[in-house]
Amino acid sequence: MKVVHLFSGGLDSTVALHQLIAEGHELRLLAIDYGQRHRKELDFANSMAKEKAIELKQLSFPSIRELLSGSSQTSDELGVPEGHYTSENMKLTVVPNRNMIMLSIAIGWAVSLKFDAVCYAAHAGDHTIYPDCRPEFAHAVDQLAQICDWHPVKLLRPFIELSKSQIVRKGAELEVPFERTWSCYKGLDKHCGKCGTCVERQEAFEIARIVDPTSYEQP
Amino acid sequence: MKVVHLFSGGLDSTVALHQLIAEGHELRLLAIDYGQRHRKELDFANSMAKEKAIELKQLSFPSIRELLSGSSQTSDELGVPEGHYTSENMKLTVVPNRNMIMLSIAIGWAVSLKFDAVCYAAHAGDHTIYPDCRPEFAHAVDQLAQICDWHPVKLLRPFIELSKSQIVRKGAELEVPFERTWSCYKGLDKHCGKCGTCVERQEAFEIARIVDPTSYEQP
Repeated sequence: MKVVHLFSGGLDSTVALHQLIAEGHELRLLAIDYGQRHRKELDFANSMAKEKAIELKQLSFPSIRELLSGSSQTSDELGVPEGHYTSENMKLTVVPNRNMIMLSIAIGWAVSLKFDAVCYAAHAGDHTIYPDCRPEFAHAVDQLAQICDWHPVKLLRPFIELSKSQIVRKGAELEVPFERTWSCYKGLDKHCGKCGTCVERQEAFEIARIVDPTSYEQP
Repeated sequence: MKVVHLFSGGLDSTVALHQLIAEGHELRLLAIDYGQRHRKELDFANSMAKEKAIELKQLSFPSIRELLSGSSQTSDELGVPEGHYTSENMKLTVVPNRNMIMLSIAIGWAVSLKFDAVCYAAHAGDHTIYPDCRPEFAHAVDQLAQICDWHPVKLLRPFIELSKSQIVRKGAELEVPFERTWSCYKGLDKHCGKCGTCVERQEAFEIARIVDPTSYEQP
């Protein structure tokens, strides 16, 4: 298949990239700078794309931050919450309608390229906090992608029923260099070790019984 | 209701704006510069918003043009086709997935504002050429907007079953200053009078038996 993969440079979308490569698809990568606090992830995306020699387009419109306020990831006033990634306070990290916006752009590019599909790496651990990572959301986007243009596009969501530890296990099988992926929502020098995504990342490696090569500020 | 209205400065979305005002909704307006050839329409949008004293946000990311190529509206190489707006060659004016992209941003803003709905002015005359103006597309977006965030949003599409001449008639009742709306896809000094949207605009006034105040280069 010919696939546009929504690629943030995070652990999940990097494992998905390796899986897509292993499956032999023709790929283009899309990275989006929506003014996210952790835009450092995009450096990881660009570096991985370069290594794999796959074309990556980075679309930058940081001014959309203004419209998508109320999230710790698009606001300087709101601090990034710390703790377990399923706690209620993690809802502060939800960026309003982020995935529909990013997927619609990816679908537009796929239509323009006459590609077959778009892929995104939402997983089951995201369901509690992120409405736009739920299977029913992905299903509705897939339905829409069939009719939004005369050229239909599919939505691949290979991890939608997997836990993050299952993704880590899959990544280990695919020999993904995990140290070259970025999760931390704070986007500082090192992974902080305390925000929701850092806690989730550490837990996933522990459950998967895979050595975590990440260097944390406070593990 | 509290409504984010997708407002291009064109005839349809300007009539819809007047209808929303008449219905007494609390409004915000969203205009999007996606590098369209006819971005002149945005000046009309801004001027009307100012007159009505309604907040308009203009989001600019003209670099998305690169991803949405293959349309006469986002490419300098492809000329704007002339003729009747339902002819097959008008499909060249379709911008890949444009409406899903714009609506998803509008929905994101509505979620962030905790607004009830988003409105867009697609109409029945668009169905033949524009896949993202069809009732089934609008229905699917509406379904998605209910679940893309914890805060559900509705999609209003008041003109989805109306012809353009019916919109002109409605606009006349609402005393819309039609000369302050922009349709032409060429985006030059005056309306060209020959591109699909100019032909459609002239035909709509004729069928509605309303005087067309537009100044055309070649009527």
